[in-house]
Amino acid sequence: MENLSPAAALGRALWALLLATLDSTTGQPFAGESVCSARTLAKYSVTFTGKWSQTAFPKQYPLFRPPAQWSSLLGAAHSSDYSMWRKNEYVSNGLRDFAERGEAWALMREIEAAGEKLQSVHGVFSAPAVPSGTGQTSTELEVHSRHSLVSFVVRIVPSPDWFVGVDSLDLCEGGHWKEQVAVDLYPHDAGTDSGFTFSSPNFATIPQDTVTEITSSSPSHPANSFYYPRLKSLPPIARVTLVRLRQGPRAFIPPTPGLASRDNEIVDSLS
Amino acid sequence: MENLSPAAALGRALWALLLATLDSTTGQPFAGESVCSARTLAKYSVTFTGKWSQTAFPKQYPLFRPPAQWSSLLGAAHSSDYSMWRKNEYVSNGLRDFAERGEAWALMREIEAAGEKLQSVHGVFSAPAVPSGTGQTSTELEVHSRHSLVSFVVRIVPSPDWFVGVDSLDLCEGGHWKEQVAVDLYPHDAGTDSGFTFSSPNFATIPQDTVTEITSSSPSHPANSFYYPRLKSLPPIARVTLVRLRQGPRAFIPPTPGLASRDNEIVDSLS
Repeated sequence: MENLSPAAALGRALWALLLATLDSTTGQPFAGESVCSARTLAKYSVTFTGKWSQTAFPKQYPLFRPPAQWSSLLGAAHSSDYSMWRKNEYVSNGLRDFAERGEAWALMREIEAAGEKLQSVHGVFSAPAVPSGTGQTSTELEVHSRHSLVSFVVRIVPSPDWFVGVDSLDLCEGGHWKEQVAVDLYPHDAGTDSGFTFSSPNFATIPQDTVTEITSSSPSHPANSFYYPRLKSLPPIARVTLVRLRQGPRAFIPPTPGLASRDNEIVDSLS
Repeated sequence: MENLSPAAALGRALWALLLATLDSTTGQPFAGESVCSARTLAKYSVTFTGKWSQTAFPKQYPLFRPPAQWSSLLGAAHSSDYSMWRKNEYVSNGLRDFAERGEAWALMREIEAAGEKLQSVHGVFSAPAVPSGTGQTSTELEVHSRHSLVSFVVRIVPSPDWFVGVDSLDLCEGGHWKEQVAVDLYPHDAGTDSGFTFSSPNFATIPQDTVTEITSSSPSHPANSFYYPRLKSLPPIARVTLVRLRQGPRAFIPPTPGLASRDNEIVDSLS
C-alpha cells in the first residue's frame, strides 16, 4: 500500500474520475468523436419549417378542431451518454407525454436530471409552437465540445403519438463546428398509442412498442393517414436548418472598463 | 476648430456615441435605474404555472376542441428602449398574431429587429406550451446590466386575443440582482378582436383598441367569459416565478488545461 498524503489521494481520485468520465464516452458509434476538438462553445440558430401542406399530404388533412399544426419544439445539446429518443428503442415516459399530448414538463425534468446526474446534457432549448402545417419557428442553442450532439422533438398535431425530430446530430466534424446543417424530417410513431389516423381517439399500445418511422407503405394499412401506396416514399413533412452564429445575433457596444460596467465579471456568467 | 489626430477624433466620436446611448436610457419611470450596477450578467429560471381551473373559473370553462390551455411562452430580456406590450397602448402586429393565433414568428422577428437596430434587446426566450389550464412550463433566461427588464406573453387558448404576461419587470434592484420574484398574472385583451367569450368566432376590432386588463366587471357585459359580478376581483389565472441561478443548473467538471480541452477559449463564446 502506498503512503499518500490526503491531498495526493484526492488528486488521484479526481484523475481516476476524470479519466473514467472521458472513457465512458468513447466508442459510441453516433458520437463521431469522444470529445470534439473544436473551440469549447458554439452557438447556432435553429429554424424549423413545417412542410405539412394539404397539397403534399392530401389524405385526411386536418382542417378543423384542431387544424394541422406543430407543437412547441423541445430539444437538448448533449453527449452520447444521453438519448432523447432513438429509432427501434422505447421512448421515456416524458417523451410519451410529449408525443401524445404535447405535455413537455416531464421530458424537461428528464433532460435536467440527465444533466445533473450524468453531466450528459449541456442545455435545453425550445421554440414556440407553429399554429399551421407550413409555418416556421426558430430559436438558438449552444453546444459544448463535450456535448456536441443535438436532439429535439416536435409533436404532429393532431395525431395519436406522432412526432418529427432529430436524434444525436453531431455538430462537430473533424475538429470543427459545422457551419450549416439542414435535415429533412419524416413522421415517427412513438409506439405508445395505437391510433391509425390524425384524429384517432386515444388507444394505448400495450405492451408499448418502439419508435418507428412512418412511411408511405408502413404501417401497411389503407386506413393509416400517411399510407400512400403509389408513392415510393413520403415527401419530407418538415425541415430543420442549423446555422452557426459567429457572434451573438445582437451586437452590443463592448463594455469599457470603468465606464459602462462597474463589475465586469463576464467569466462569472459561464458555468 | 481644434486640431485632432484621426485617432483622437475617433475616440471623441465614440465617447459621444457612448454617452448618447447611456443618456437615452435615463428618466424612464419603469426602468428603475438607467444602468443596473449589479454584475454584468445573471441567469434566472422561469416557471409559469397555469391556475385556470374549472373551479376557479367555472363560467364557460372550455372542455373540448380545444380544452383550456396555454400557448408557448415567448419573452425577451431588454432595456427600457424596448416594449413588448403595455397596458393602454396598442399592440404591435407581431403581438396581435401571437395573441390571436399563437403565431410567434412575426413577434420573434420584431424582438430581433429591436435588438439589432436599437441594441435594446439582450435575448429572446421561450418555454413549451402547456396543454391544460393548470399545468406548468419552465425555461431559463439571461439578463444583462444594461438589459435588466423582462417581458413575456402567453396566449390564453381558446380565446379571441387574450393573454397573460409581464411588462418590463426589472430584475435589478439597488445594484443587485433580485434573488426571486413571483408575479400573479391576470387576463388581458390585446384589443384586436372583439370576441366576448373564449370560443367567439374571429371578429376584428376596427379601429384597433389598446391593451386592457379583463376584470370580473370589465368588459361590463354578462356574456363576457370573465364577467363575475359577485366577485370583487378575479383570482389570478396564472403565476410566474423567477429564481436567480447562482451557477448553471448543470455543473460540469471544470476544463483542465491541456487535458480535457485543447482549445479552451471560453471567453470567445460571449458576445
